[in-house]
Amino acid sequence: MAQRHRPRISASYRIETPLDPKRAAEAMAGEQSSGTFLKLAGETDALRERHAARVESVIRRETVTAPSLPGALPSETYTRADVILSWPLENIGASLPNLLATVLGNLTELRELSGLRLTDITLPNDFIKAFAGPQFSIDGTRRLAGVDDGPLIGTIIKPSVGLSPEQTADLVKQLIEAGIDFIKDDELIADPPYSPLAKRVPAIMRVIEEHAQRTGRKPMYAFNITGDIDEMRQRHDLVRDHGGTCIMASVNWVGMSSLVALRRHSELPIHGHRNGWGLFYRHPQIGMSYRAYQALLRLAGADHLHVNGLGSKFAEADESVIDSARACLAPLLEGPGRDDRAMPVFSSAQTIHQAPATFAKLHSTDLIFTCGGGIMGHPNGIAAGCRSLRAAWEATANGVPLEEQAKQEPDLAVALRAFRSPFSG
Amino acid sequence: MAQRHRPRISASYRIETPLDPKRAAEAMAGEQSSGTFLKLAGETDALRERHAARVESVIRRETVTAPSLPGALPSETYTRADVILSWPLENIGASLPNLLATVLGNLTELRELSGLRLTDITLPNDFIKAFAGPQFSIDGTRRLAGVDDGPLIGTIIKPSVGLSPEQTADLVKQLIEAGIDFIKDDELIADPPYSPLAKRVPAIMRVIEEHAQRTGRKPMYAFNITGDIDEMRQRHDLVRDHGGTCIMASVNWVGMSSLVALRRHSELPIHGHRNGWGLFYRHPQIGMSYRAYQALLRLAGADHLHVNGLGSKFAEADESVIDSARACLAPLLEGPGRDDRAMPVFSSAQTIHQAPATFAKLHSTDLIFTCGGGIMGHPNGIAAGCRSLRAAWEATANGVPLEEQAKQEPDLAVALRAFRSPFSG
Repeated sequence: MAQRHRPRISASYRIETPLDPKRAAEAMAGEQSSGTFLKLAGETDALRERHAARVESVIRRETVTAPSLPGALPSETYTRADVILSWPLENIGASLPNLLATVLGNLTELRELSGLRLTDITLPNDFIKAFAGPQFSIDGTRRLAGVDDGPLIGTIIKPSVGLSPEQTADLVKQLIEAGIDFIKDDELIADPPYSPLAKRVPAIMRVIEEHAQRTGRKPMYAFNITGDIDEMRQRHDLVRDHGGTCIMASVNWVGMSSLVALRRHSELPIHGHRNGWGLFYRHPQIGMSYRAYQALLRLAGADHLHVNGLGSKFAEADESVIDSARACLAPLLEGPGRDDRAMPVFSSAQTIHQAPATFAKLHSTDLIFTCGGGIMGHPNGIAAGCRSLRAAWEATANGVPLEEQAKQEPDLAVALRAFRSPFSG
Repeated sequence: MAQRHRPRISASYRIETPLDPKRAAEAMAGEQSSGTFLKLAGETDALRERHAARVESVIRRETVTAPSLPGALPSETYTRADVILSWPLENIGASLPNLLATVLGNLTELRELSGLRLTDITLPNDFIKAFAGPQFSIDGTRRLAGVDDGPLIGTIIKPSVGLSPEQTADLVKQLIEAGIDFIKDDELIADPPYSPLAKRVPAIMRVIEEHAQRTGRKPMYAFNITGDIDEMRQRHDLVRDHGGTCIMASVNWVGMSSLVALRRHSELPIHGHRNGWGLFYRHPQIGMSYRAYQALLRLAGADHLHVNGLGSKFAEADESVIDSARACLAPLLEGPGRDDRAMPVFSSAQTIHQAPATFAKLHSTDLIFTCGGGIMGHPNGIAAGCRSLRAAWEATANGVPLEEQAKQEPDLAVALRAFRSPFSG
């Protein structure tokens, strides 16, 4: 059949349904493609054959007696199942917002479902190739930050709100003199009246440029330029013109359409902050997996993507964190001159203890490791905090236990006593 | 105290927490404002006093024994509560994506919460005034569509996918000759290869312009221009240049930043399609209410906003649908020359029976009423379907029961026999 040769998009779901899962999958496919009111004489069948969403597989799983989501059709039991649907690429074209309208769209409102979680998306090469993807990825980020090996050791400016541009610049000076590789604005500060970017960017970049001229190394600062697309383009230019090397955006709130446009305009790495992401993943029976979503954010142009951290203060399970980070580091498409990986950003209650735990599961140091207390809380100060983290990652990458390495690294020895491991029960 | 006179943003939440609700509310306020790693000598207290989020109220509600969301701190009981937090406007400035980063942000990931639903947002006038809001609202939409009274009777092009531009134009011809006021693209079709807007817009507008010249009335067609912001601006111009009077976007996937930019560029009403919205509302213990979200979409510039419909095929409860529609019709700010209401769009399994049910609760006909089967399924054809719906709404607005009106309106009489009421048990 002709359409077998047309490229298709497929999406995997975990559903829960009051119906037989096969019937539910067919309802999903119908809702997201051929829904029709009118019979068009002679043409509807051919049209449906070519454009209909196809149910690729349905694997029945456990049955429960109470629906996870309200509003579903009443039933005595609700069956969970893994469903794969596919669509011809030509239904959508290469468009991320329209892809989401198709693979999610109204599905979460169907009474035929009492649970719907998008677990993965597989995109044909024609779709992937239509997007520029991350402009800097891992290698470009390392080059700009001057960090050849190991994670970028980073931190976040805190207090999150209220610091003036000058206070922020003073803090940046302390942090970069202590040896930090990467600093980011908090997601709560973008361009507020008390610290407009027009003043914050020059104040911070003056400090960073002085340091770069003196030492030859320019730490990366991710300025939060979140705003409407016109504002973001102007703010990007402001950062670039002052020698800045990274821009940050709250990807869920600026949206796919603006991220694509920002990528097209940008000459700097885009640090994708996913605040609000809890809305999409926290309940296991509704939402989507970061494995699915991060691919779209990378296609849209994100160079760095937040993944929380192991043993963090947040609700996300460690396996989910690692699955997200692995997904960010898996190429979507490989080819000469193409690197569409994103650098995962670990954060939230991270200390030296997370280095071995993270590396053991990720087998990579291509990441940004941001710490607050894990740096500032070092008894011997911020510089010792940075050194202890670098020592911890270096030891880990060399297969040396932290306690062993600590014999030669006094800062690490102090850190091991100062910070409690979240993994030791 | 000085900051009492500064305008504040407030947000209401329904939470569930393993902690005392007051402690949970304080954790929320801390996370979303003053989070700090460093003590800045002498300055932190003043800074916190000025910029900290404030817990305005905590009202304890029921206690449950199982957490609604996984990942919360373990406890024997989980308490639900209504919480109001507020922030000084100066923390954020007038920015919708940054507002969302503040009122939602990482809150949904806190282990201190086993449930978090944003139920309402109250914005100071200084915030509201910074946005142009809907450009056409109700009056402008009525003027363009030539409908002075009653709802705009509308429909959606189906099959959702696969029709060529010419087939679509043929369908549009049938529909407007039958007397329809409003037609929209399905959210599954934007600018796909099989029906590019560059061909679909001219094909459809040729039919509509011919009709307008012949009859003096120009039905409104909402073209789905969803794409990245540069694409959307070009597509808007294409629609405008061909005499089109409405553009549609999937608001959740284009995002706030692009909606604001589109509004700035647009000379046409923006039809806001909320597909994907189920992700945000369907589970009662996570997400947000449309009451909160629609206000932001209106500020961003949406003229029309989908609200589902009463007795629909979707999972949303009727009270939620009406609450959404009422919210769309409540001004955010009143003043000379300002009308920031959005026209609610009712859809999904709507027939003549929904007219009295909807009017009884909404007390307004300032809405778009879209039907599929409720028009096409009329035994005497599409024109009779349109007439029956108009008769149903006119009778309803005049306080006349449908059965009574049907004595003089044969199309309505037929419709009453043909369509089963979802409200009659």
